[in-house]
Formats: sequence, C-alpha cells, structure tokens
Amino acid sequence: MKKLGVGVLGVGEMGKRHAENLRRLVPQARLVAIADVAGERARQVAAELEIEHWDNSLGALLEHKDINSVLIATPDKFHAGAIIQAAEAGKNILCEKPLATNMADAEAALKAVEKAGVRLQIGFMRRYDPAYAAAMQRVEAGEIGEPVLFKSVGRDKDAPPMSAYQANVNGMVFYNNTIHDFDLARWLMKDEVREVQSYGTVAIRPEVAKYGDVVASVVNLSFSRGAIGNIESYVQAVYAYDVRTEVVGSKGSIFIGSVNQAPATFLTAHGATRTLADHFLTRFEDAYLAEVRDVVDNMLHDRPPRVTGEDGLRSLAIAVAAEKSLHQRSACPVEIQAAATSGKS
Amino acid sequence: MKKLGVGVLGVGEMGKRHAENLRRLVPQARLVAIADVAGERARQVAAELEIEHWDNSLGALLEHKDINSVLIATPDKFHAGAIIQAAEAGKNILCEKPLATNMADAEAALKAVEKAGVRLQIGFMRRYDPAYAAAMQRVEAGEIGEPVLFKSVGRDKDAPPMSAYQANVNGMVFYNNTIHDFDLARWLMKDEVREVQSYGTVAIRPEVAKYGDVVASVVNLSFSRGAIGNIESYVQAVYAYDVRTEVVGSKGSIFIGSVNQAPATFLTAHGATRTLADHFLTRFEDAYLAEVRDVVDNMLHDRPPRVTGEDGLRSLAIAVAAEKSLHQRSACPVEIQAAATSGKS
Amino acid sequence: MKKLGVGVLGVGEMGKRHAENLRRLVPQARLVAIADVAGERARQVAAELEIEHWDNSLGALLEHKDINSVLIATPDKFHAGAIIQAAEAGKNILCEKPLATNMADAEAALKAVEKAGVRLQIGFMRRYDPAYAAAMQRVEAGEIGEPVLFKSVGRDKDAPPMSAYQANVNGMVFYNNTIHDFDLARWLMKDEVREVQSYGTVAIRPEVAKYGDVVASVVNLSFSRGAIGNIESYVQAVYAYDVRTEVVGSKGSIFIGSVNQAPATFLTAHGATRTLADHFLTRFEDAYLAEVRDVVDNMLHDRPPRVTGEDGLRSLAIAVAAEKSLHQRSACPVEIQAAATSGKS
Amino acid sequence: MKKLGVGVLGVGEMGKRHAENLRRLVPQARLVAIADVAGERARQVAAELEIEHWDNSLGALLEHKDINSVLIATPDKFHAGAIIQAAEAGKNILCEKPLATNMADAEAALKAVEKAGVRLQIGFMRRYDPAYAAAMQRVEAGEIGEPVLFKSVGRDKDAPPMSAYQANVNGMVFYNNTIHDFDLARWLMKDEVREVQSYGTVAIRPEVAKYGDVVASVVNLSFSRGAIGNIESYVQAVYAYDVRTEVVGSKGSIFIGSVNQAPATFLTAHGATRTLADHFLTRFEDAYLAEVRDVVDNMLHDRPPRVTGEDGLRSLAIAVAAEKSLHQRSACPVEIQAAATSGKS
Repeated sequence: MKKLGVGVLGVGEMGKRHAENLRRLVPQARLVAIADVAGERARQVAAELEIEHWDNSLGALLEHKDINSVLIATPDKFHAGAIIQAAEAGKNILCEKPLATNMADAEAALKAVEKAGVRLQIGFMRRYDPAYAAAMQRVEAGEIGEPVLFKSVGRDKDAPPMSAYQANVNGMVFYNNTIHDFDLARWLMKDEVREVQSYGTVAIRPEVAKYGDVVASVVNLSFSRGAIGNIESYVQAVYAYDVRTEVVGSKGSIFIGSVNQAPATFLTAHGATRTLADHFLTRFEDAYLAEVRDVVDNMLHDRPPRVTGEDGLRSLAIAVAAEKSLHQRSACPVEIQAAATSGKS
Repeated sequence: MKKLGVGVLGVGEMGKRHAENLRRLVPQARLVAIADVAGERARQVAAELEIEHWDNSLGALLEHKDINSVLIATPDKFHAGAIIQAAEAGKNILCEKPLATNMADAEAALKAVEKAGVRLQIGFMRRYDPAYAAAMQRVEAGEIGEPVLFKSVGRDKDAPPMSAYQANVNGMVFYNNTIHDFDLARWLMKDEVREVQSYGTVAIRPEVAKYGDVVASVVNLSFSRGAIGNIESYVQAVYAYDVRTEVVGSKGSIFIGSVNQAPATFLTAHGATRTLADHFLTRFEDAYLAEVRDVVDNMLHDRPPRVTGEDGLRSLAIAVAAEKSLHQRSACPVEIQAAATSGKS
Repeated sequence: MKKLGVGVLGVGEMGKRHAENLRRLVPQARLVAIADVAGERARQVAAELEIEHWDNSLGALLEHKDINSVLIATPDKFHAGAIIQAAEAGKNILCEKPLATNMADAEAALKAVEKAGVRLQIGFMRRYDPAYAAAMQRVEAGEIGEPVLFKSVGRDKDAPPMSAYQANVNGMVFYNNTIHDFDLARWLMKDEVREVQSYGTVAIRPEVAKYGDVVASVVNLSFSRGAIGNIESYVQAVYAYDVRTEVVGSKGSIFIGSVNQAPATFLTAHGATRTLADHFLTRFEDAYLAEVRDVVDNMLHDRPPRVTGEDGLRSLAIAVAAEKSLHQRSACPVEIQAAATSGKS
Repeated sequence: MKKLGVGVLGVGEMGKRHAENLRRLVPQARLVAIADVAGERARQVAAELEIEHWDNSLGALLEHKDINSVLIATPDKFHAGAIIQAAEAGKNILCEKPLATNMADAEAALKAVEKAGVRLQIGFMRRYDPAYAAAMQRVEAGEIGEPVLFKSVGRDKDAPPMSAYQANVNGMVFYNNTIHDFDLARWLMKDEVREVQSYGTVAIRPEVAKYGDVVASVVNLSFSRGAIGNIESYVQAVYAYDVRTEVVGSKGSIFIGSVNQAPATFLTAHGATRTLADHFLTRFEDAYLAEVRDVVDNMLHDRPPRVTGEDGLRSLAIAVAAEKSLHQRSACPVEIQAAATSGKS
C-alpha cells in the first residue's frame, strides 16, 4: 500500500490526538516524525507512539525527505508562519483552526500556499461529525426548505487558567472558540455572513479584561441572502462541554446536540441526574479521526481539500468583525480584500 | 364565600380561555359579564359558559355594578385605551401583554391607573408556569451563582394569515411575541436591559415587510450589571410551538423547555418520531390558570399585583429599542422617561 | 341544554377529582349530590364545590330523583356491592377500577347490571390519555405491523402508609395498580392474555407480607395469538410517579412515557438534574377529564360505554391468575367462566 | 516496553474488531498472528492490519512461540473446545461470550483451565462500558439503597438471515443475546439468580421454530436475597439497536441507555425525528477497547481476570434454565453442580 508520509508540528493535547490517529488508525498514512518546540514533550510522545523521529523545530521536521504533508497544531498565533514555512518547503498542509489570528497574517499565508502550489486544509473538524454531516445532507436535500435562522451555542466546561490568558498563545474567544460556529454558519447555511453585532462580558471574571478577552459573548449574524442568526460562546460553563446548533428553515428545523449527553440517568427523590460530556476530544472523537482520514486520502490521490484556505479566511473575517462590533457597539460588516480570495487553494 | 365580581373584555381565543377559567376554575371569582365588539361572539360565549350578561362595548360592561375588576384581552392596540377607561371607572385591571404598542400610550395608561388609584397587572403569565417558577426559585436561592447569559427562543407553529397583518390589530413580533422574553429577561436575571442589538428577516415571506414586521428576529441584550443575552423569535416554525429559555450562571445553568414536548415516541426503521406541542394555550394552560387565580386572590385581599404596570412599561421599552435597532443597524439604548416610573402601581 | 344528573359516591382523593371535573368542567352534567360514609367529608366537599346536596350513604344518594347516573369511587372492595345497589335502583354507572376484588363479586355485579339493563363503564382512564390514545391510533393504522411484545412499567412514588395495608380497603398491587396495565395489554394488543407467570418481592419491607401483598412484582404475559409481554409494578419508587408502556411490533415500536417528565433541567458541575412528575392525578389529569366527559356524553345519548363490564372482568381475571402464579411458581392460565361474559353490558 | 504476545482466533465481525483494537490501540500488546478456518479471510485481515502471520487453524496459531495469550472469537459452539485446546497449550485466554452452549462443555472447559493453571476471562464487555461502569459505582456506593428490581431490554435492529439459523453457529437467543443481561443481572445486583420464568414467541417468523429458537423472549428473575427482575430480548426490532438496563432500589434508580441515541433531531410539521444507533459495535465501541486493554494489562502483570470462568458458567446456567422454562411453562431453578465452581480461575 502506498502511504502518505506525514509530520506533526505541535504535540500538545490537540496535536497529540492527531498524531495518535495518524499512527494507529489511518493505515494510508505513515507518521514519520513529530516536532515540538518543547523537545522533551516531542521525545516522550514519540516514545509513547513508537515513532522513530522527533524534532524540536519545524525546520528540522521539514528536513525529513519522506514527509510529504505537515499537520500544524501549534498555538494559534504561530499557524500562519508555520503554513508559510511548510508551503515554501513544498509540503501539503492540514492546519488547525484558526488560519491565523489577524487578516494580514492570513492573507500572507494564503499567498504563500498559492505561490507554492501546495494543498491547504483548515481543521474545522465539526464538518466531519456524524450529526453535523447528517444535518448538512438534509439541508442539501431541501428537507427544511429555505434556511431562515442559524443558531449555535458553544460552551467549554472549565475556565481556562489565568496562565493561558497571560501566555496569550491563542486568540480571544472569537478566534479560538466561536470560529467553529462561524465556519458552521457559512457551511450549513450555504451563504456568507455579511454583517455582525456582538456583546461580550467579563462580569464574573473581570481580570480577563486586561487581556482583551471576554468570558461570554453573543453575536448576531446577518447573511447575504436575508437569513439571520446568533452564536453564543461561554468559556466556563461549569456543568459540561455543551455544543448545540440549529438550522431553522421554512419547512422544518434541525437540532444538533443535546444537554443530555451521556446515557446513564440516576433517579432519586431529588430528581433525575445525568452525567454530561466534558471535553471536545470526547464529543468530537469520531470527527477528528474522520477528518484526518479524509485529508490523508485526498492528499494521496491529489484531490482538492474539503475545507479550504478561503474557508479559513472567511471565518476569520467574521471573528474580526465580531471583535470590532464589541468595541463599536454597532453592526460591523464582514470585510475581505478582493485579492485575498482570488487564489483559492 | 366573598367573591370578586369580574368582567372580561374581548373573548377571542385568549379572552375566552380567561373567561372559562374564571367561570369554572376560580371559585373566588364571579364572572358577571363578558363583552366584545363582536356582539354575536360575546353572546355565544356567554351562552356556552352559562354567564348571565354579555355586552358589545367596554362602556356597557363597566355599567355592571357588581363588577369590581376587568380583564382586558382585546387586540394589542386597544389595551392602553381600555385600561384608561376601566381605571376611570374605578375598576382593578388584569390586562394582557403588551401594556401598549407605543411608549406614549403606555405612559398615558399608567398615569390614568395612578390617578384612579386602582390595581393593574400585566399578563406575563409565564412567571406562573411551574417550570419558570421553579427556575426563578433556584436563581433566587443562588444555585447557579451569578447570572452570565440569558437565552430565549420563542417559536410559533403556524404562520399568521396575511389578514392578521392587514388588520394590524397586534403590534409587530417584538410587541406581541418577544415581549414575553423581554419580561422573562428582566425577571429571571433580576436586572434591567440597558441596550439591545437586533436583526430581523422577511426572507421567506417578503410581503410581510410592507406591514413593518419580520418573520424572524434575533436580539442581543446587554444588562446593567454586565450580563449579556440573546432572544430569538420566529412566527412560523412549522414543526411545533417551541419555547425554551436558559439562564446560564457562574455555578450552573437552568434550561426550561424541551424540543421533545409530548410523551409518546414512535420508533420505526426511519428513526424515532415524537409528536410535539403545537399551541401556547396547551403549553401554558397551567400558567394561565395560576395567573388568574393569583390576581383574583390579590384583588380580593387588596394586595399589590405581582406583575406591575412598570413591568409592562419596561418590557415595552425594550421592544421599542429592538425595533429601532432593526432599522439603525446599531446598538440602541432602552429608554424610559424618569416620570413614567415614578408612580408604580 | 339537557343535562345528565349525576351523583358521586366516595369523595376521597379520586372521587373528589371526579366531582370537581363534573361540577366545573363538564357542562353536560349536573352534579346533584355527593355521598361518603365519612359524612363530614361529604359535607366539606359539597361546600367547597358549591353542590346543594350531600349524603352519608349510597342509599340516600340513590333517593335523589334527578340523579340518572352514579360515579363510584369507594375503596376497591366495595365496588361490586355498590354497582349492584346502583343497578337495582336503575342508575347508569361509572365505576373506578377494579370492577371487584374477586371473580365471584365481579360476576355478581355484571349479572345485576345485565338484569337491570343499565350501562356500566369501568374507570380505565389511561385509554383516554392523549399519548395512549395516539398510540392506539397508530397500532390500529398498522404502523407498527404485527404486535410482538407488550411492556409496561408502573411505579408509584411514595410507599403507602402501613395503615393502608392494615385497613385493607384496596386489593393487593395486582388489583389496584397492575390492573391498569392488564387493561392496556388487552386494549393495545387487541388480544387476550391467556397465561401469566409472576414473581413478587417484599424484600425491603417484610411487614407487607402479612397482608398478602408485595412491594414490587413482574408478570410475564402470553397472548392468545402468540405475542408475549411483561409488566412491572413497584409501589415505592421514591424518585417519581413513573409510568411507561411500549408496544413493540414487526415494523416498529411505540414508547409512551418518559423518565424526564418535567420541562426544566438544572445543570451544574454535578450533572443535569430534572424534577420529575410525582402523582397520577398530575400525569393523568387530562385523561380523567376526557373520561368523564365521554361517559356523560354517551349516557346522555344512550350510547354504549367505551370500557365495558367485560373489560373489567377480564383484567380482573388476569390479576387473579398473576396472584395465583406468585404462590404456585408456575404459569397460570387466565380463566373466565363462559357464563360470565355472555351478557356484555 | 514489555509487550504481551497475542493471537486472535476467528476474525469475523467481532474477532476483526478485537484484532484491530489489539493491533492499533493497545500499545502493551503485540498481535503476533490471526487464525480463521476461512483461511482467505485470515489472509485478508492480516494484510489489512499489516500483521505478519496468519493461519487457518487454532493448532497452527498455537505454534507461534511468542504468543502468550489467545483471544477466541469463533462461533459460540466452538468456544469450549477452543478454550480446552488453548489451555492445554498453556495460553491465557480471553473468550467471547458465552463460555459454551451447554453446561457439560462449559464444565469441561473450566476443568481444563484449572488443570493448566492458565487465566480465562469471558467477554462480557458491557461491564467496561462507561455508563454501566458508572452505574455499578453508584450501586456499590449505596446510592440507590437496596436493589429491588433488575430490568433489561436488548433489541437487535435487523432480523438475522435464515442462513444464520440454518448454520446454527450460535446458540439460541438466550445463549447469544440475553446472556449479556444474565451477566449484568448477577453483576449489578451483586446477587445470584436462583430461579427464572420465561416466555418466547416466533409469531412473526414461524420458520424460526424449527431451529429451536424464538424471535422475542421475556424472562422473569428471582434473586437469592429476594429481589426480582425481568429481561426482554428481541432480535429484529427494526428501528434501532436498543439496549437499556435499570437497577431499581429502595432509595433510587439507575437507568442506563436511551431511545434517543443519536445527537441530531430533525423537526418538521410531522413531528421530531431522531436517527438511532444501529449496531452493537457502535454502541459498545469504547467498552470493547477498554475490555481488551484491561485483559492485556492484567495478563502482563499476572493479575486475575475481572470476569471469570465462573461468571461465564453462572450466566450460562441461567440461559439453560430460561430455555427449560420456555418448554415446561413453570419456574425453573438455576442449577450448577457444586464441583463446577470449586476451581475459580
């Protein structure tokens, strides 16, 4: 069997999962090496997964001749730079979301990809989740008629440690969390968001304000063809990892997700209690695997990526507008330079 | 047993239900007469409920000496005028929501109530629903900590007939539907909404636009103490009467409502099917009865109303701001004249 | 409007609800009088419901000339005797389940009804519950194909006080609780139960044994046309009043009921909690009203009852067989004397 | 890392899943070889999983010197023989349920295991499912008080092809399906089943009768310490793979499973539709993996198995009694020869 040689950059929680999937569950891939600026972490993961090579830089990783493709799972702010470096080395790329943490970096990354003529897919893995995929099939089959409303809720269980805010490795909530919903909005509604209105709050954790972030946000969406929507994000919901999406149409509605996410109910005189899901790696376990399998298969057979660099750019542009609206207290248009999307990867 | 003499004005779907409850299920009340400008309808309902008197005007209804209190269930735009007339006749009043369809009328109505020294309650019956009432108890007991987000969805099942838009008897969606959620927002969050941002759409029914209305809307809320929120309304959801509310706090969350509203599930090779609730009179049957019982009891014992004229005014002010935001594409403050709330009923 | 004159015998919890429904919510009925051997209770209920007459015996109740029909809601063991007395007085009858607590009494009651030529309906009100009624419609429409399995669970929330066992006013669990499921089994499966196998336990409340009762039971059913089933009853489930029924067929299945019976969910770091239903008068509120309305309407128009004396007899025969199986540790046939069903009311 | 050398016998649907898990997801194991009497199937699976060796007999498999443990996933009727052969070769064993299809074979197998001094675990993987494991923890913590009732439902989605009945590779429904529930009954109730009563039906597929099997069954259970229970099995439920278990106690109840097994709901004017789970390999994916990981870890560290040969024997004895009761129409005791359990593996 011909196999795709892959290298993984960044083996924190997310990158390690990708590496495990590639190593164990994707027969078409050969995980050649992993790299992490924390070299010791790279060494440990390599040992655990029984991978021959590990490196402490992307430069070193790119030296391996049998690596054809690179999976980027660094902190958000290093995504664009890593894409540029990998593209210049002629590698195909699967990069975690977001494409970048600002529009200039995003456009530079896409330009590099175009110039190098390599493939780039952005890691919006929810598109691969069985429930989301089934929803999309029904939308495309016209079963809910014309979409009228897009609604989404994304709540993480535990508050991020303050050190995460201090290190500023990821963008604020719009760039790191809500970006998933921005992508779903475009994908499920088969339309573009043209304008947004947003509010955010730090009320229960005021110290977050000095890092330019919020603990909760609501973003109203206005779509190009007339539909509207709202996305809520909350990073410390305490009770569960709770992700729900609705597409409401003229003939029916689709509701994805559940507040009852585990199959055991405990009934006492105090009521019924259920244990809930607590982590995205649990909820989207299947999606992450399906994603990396699809990417490997497409790259092996030189087929275009399912989630493009332009998808990454457009969702980022919504996040930028949402952040702007937070400060301006007015609706903000979603803006993309014409040039930026001319070269679709 | 001493009984409260009550007259009901307006016996359409809503008023008839109130009349039935008063006639049959509220022993403390005596339903003396009903009135409706459609005299024949008044006559028929009186016959069906075995009530002695019926009239075709509020003036005639107010003539009955043993009527102490009036329940107003006319079309929205007549609420304020009816309140003024009933107040001037010295009657206590339970008026369906909204208090009025514009701020000037609302303020005039409250002034008349204050001057006459009568009681006025506004018909926000959801506060009496067992699930909402239980939620409020938990909020007040501090069980979810500090409220961070208020979320609400209100979807009617069937599209209103175009004749309803033409007759313009009720206000647009914000005044007739969303007003319930505006009241819940203030009540459950124990806070005031200071600013809103809204989008609306007529995409799937463009002819609604000429009546100044929308078929769906999303309203972002900013509360005085820092919390935020969003309310969605949709008047033609097709699949069910679907009302859901969440209060999300620092220690937990409360979710009221369900998309699975009926207790029978039909399982076939095509999946699981449930029959859903289809009407507010079904979903809130208990609430309407509890409301009218509470009002009658309070009036008999000269206790202040649970939902005041000021509550009516403040929810209306949010609707006004939401409508303004729809046109201005910017956040709009919720404004109330200082004088308007000085005389709380 | 012509009205049916009704008298109610027994105004404990159940009889009082019937009286309230008849007095307030059934315009076609006139509740002439109520009777209870506890005369003071009869007097109080009459005052509360504003009914003119009250009596302390069935004999006195039957004296009222404008009473055409009698609703019997006494303790179980008095049902048969009251039916005989009312029938001999020429009254139509709605009698709470069970028809009687032994076969001899049941047969005597049916004979008296037949001889007097009056109508008799047995109070299996679940047939009137919207969810059960919808299920039956689907069964009759053939939507689940041929029925294969009948499953039912009936759990009361709070343990009966020991005084209830001592007074022995009702039959054991099979006669007072499971009898509902025996009736549902026959009705929904459109078939007769020919044999049963049962186990019971008193493990957590051994003192119940001396009254010949159990706290929980499981009864396997064998139907005449080949289907099978099981019914579980538990009288002290602690957590909720939990009633669930399934009809499983060759093309699909119907599931009635839910462990999530209330529409508010409370979410904390400890999981999701729901408040559950706690009483049959809450769960089956609509069914009791629909039942009495149907009975009154049928009696006014001289139409046959929907649930017949034979239905009462056949469900009782299953209970008798289930009790016998408990002691014999073998399958017991369901036996009815041919004569007993010859005169169907 | 020291690794456990494993061979897999039988690579049909179930055995192939075990092989995949061992090959890819259990770093502590080395899958040395697979064997199947259908040699071509063994060859294909070996190629797909990139395993060096494949064989077409257990004898050949046992020749591999670096195989320390054998996983048996043959048709049921070959389990006991394979256990004996593997035990005599000195291998530790994980054998799929049931231990055997009759008591004599089961006892012979346990005797061989005891004589050889090897480890044997039976594949009751539900004990490893997160929901069942969480339930057991609560039972053991005393949270539901004293267990009163055990209820379980096991329904397969699609009818087995008639060829499966003809080939008679597996035992009837009690031995192949209900055996899971028999094991759960013993495990979750921490008690032994002493007697059973059962009914079965072939009504909708009469041709199954000639193979001595049924399409649906209900089994009443009587436990040694007084609790009771019921298990239903149905092999062609059409709508879903539907597994549910309840343990009902004196202080509360635990409900495992759900009829709403997938997280997407489709809402239209015809009601709410959900897509349901359809296969045991999906529902119990996590359990199968956790099971094989635990077995490998225990064998590597020479710790006793979590599910013993005696567990296999005792669940089989319940199946035997249930089958007997089907024919005798009476309660049948669960019988085990004293000698059979003297040597616990």
